[in-house]
Amino acid sequence: MKLIGDNLRITKPDIQEALKSGDPMPVQGLVKLCVEKGTFAIDVNTGPLGKSPEKGMAFFIKAVESVTHLPLLIDTSNPVAMKAGLKGASNRPIINGFSLEPRKLEKILPLAKEFDCDIVGFLLYPDSRVPKDEAERFEVAIELIEKAEDAGVPKERVIIDPIVPPLAWEDGIVQARAVLNVIRTLPDLLGFDVRTIGGVSNLTTGAGNKKKKNLMVQSYVAMLATAGLDYALLDILNAETVAAARASSILSKENIFSWGMVPGG
Amino acid sequence: MKLIGDNLRITKPDIQEALKSGDPMPVQGLVKLCVEKGTFAIDVNTGPLGKSPEKGMAFFIKAVESVTHLPLLIDTSNPVAMKAGLKGASNRPIINGFSLEPRKLEKILPLAKEFDCDIVGFLLYPDSRVPKDEAERFEVAIELIEKAEDAGVPKERVIIDPIVPPLAWEDGIVQARAVLNVIRTLPDLLGFDVRTIGGVSNLTTGAGNKKKKNLMVQSYVAMLATAGLDYALLDILNAETVAAARASSILSKENIFSWGMVPGG
Repeated sequence: MKLIGDNLRITKPDIQEALKSGDPMPVQGLVKLCVEKGTFAIDVNTGPLGKSPEKGMAFFIKAVESVTHLPLLIDTSNPVAMKAGLKGASNRPIINGFSLEPRKLEKILPLAKEFDCDIVGFLLYPDSRVPKDEAERFEVAIELIEKAEDAGVPKERVIIDPIVPPLAWEDGIVQARAVLNVIRTLPDLLGFDVRTIGGVSNLTTGAGNKKKKNLMVQSYVAMLATAGLDYALLDILNAETVAAARASSILSKENIFSWGMVPGG
Repeated sequence: MKLIGDNLRITKPDIQEALKSGDPMPVQGLVKLCVEKGTFAIDVNTGPLGKSPEKGMAFFIKAVESVTHLPLLIDTSNPVAMKAGLKGASNRPIINGFSLEPRKLEKILPLAKEFDCDIVGFLLYPDSRVPKDEAERFEVAIELIEKAEDAGVPKERVIIDPIVPPLAWEDGIVQARAVLNVIRTLPDLLGFDVRTIGGVSNLTTGAGNKKKKNLMVQSYVAMLATAGLDYALLDILNAETVAAARASSILSKENIFSWGMVPGG
């Protein structure tokens, strides 16, 4: 399980301010920290970028790439911003992402073909609803893969995001368990070694005691690792969550056989 | 997943001393602490109890039962001590346990029939070797259940212990993964809802950095809970491990559907 920091987000006031003022320092400082903590890639969550999506995306790409050459996930729902990101990035980035929403199928998915890059596929209904159980998630996954292939995107390019639910939802824990089963079963169901990605931070959105929330995240990342999740999108600066995720990866990674092989173990 | 403290052990100097001097206080104090921390049962690990097994076992049972009415696991390899424990305990105790070792089959297993009680069955070869992979563990499990039924013990009375390996073993991590798969698959394989128990403390026996060991245990208990382990035998006084185990249980327990149902959540 590879860990990807979701820390760079436009919703943070200092990042918003950086974009407005054109000062790359806050972005650079944050990305440097994420790199130090061993993030596998940088999720560049710019939001739709309003009236100047191309200029805004160029600012972010330049700021991030001035401090790291790690791969980028371009995380925006605006196709114009997305295209600018795909054009601007030096390494081949990952599109984050598309779903069965008509606008995403029409405007985002074709970019994966145009730029020959990986694309995250969210298990969501066309109206953005989250499927209610495993069966519905499987149906959506099959349809997503079909849509990708129809658009000329090889199925191996799609990284499925089964949508980790907030535990605060009425049936949050049931949904969280369904997500684990989906991750475990999807490669068999789809008949190829499909990769999966999960947004761990989503789990503790909303109410709840902080200590208990942290414990839940730590347990859940262990379960995600066992289920075979390929990429965990999370707060890479949360030392406890990251330590739990790394320990879980070691315990579930096929190519580590013993404690003696664990670095520093 | 129910948590059972393995804290009461004859190998601890103060417990040894308590037995020698006949002073129940150290035993009572320790058991009280375990009860406070919410242990589901008390594992009474007396060892073979040398020359006066009956007297020794009576001391422990009396000391423990003077502070709690929780169920006891009688944890000794000495059949005479075991029988004394089974006779002495007020609630129906659990025998911990038997294996394919001839002495255990002859002397311990029949006590489960005689006292009509649950018995832990260790997945070990007759010469006490640990099976080397999942297939071997399954073979041993099938044989254990057969032996139990041959001895007139209903198979539902057997609680399988797949032997959590020390990570310090040459192939410790591979074995730890095999144990998870065995726990997950055993009910299907045996064709009934067999219960399982795992000795979590065993995982970090031997060398290793302490912080990393704790992380491994926390991740592994989450994996055990997901795999469907019924009873985790562990240091119930280790707050971090216990918190991780409880969070994992909540995330994997069939009858908890949402965060709102988590006590204090």
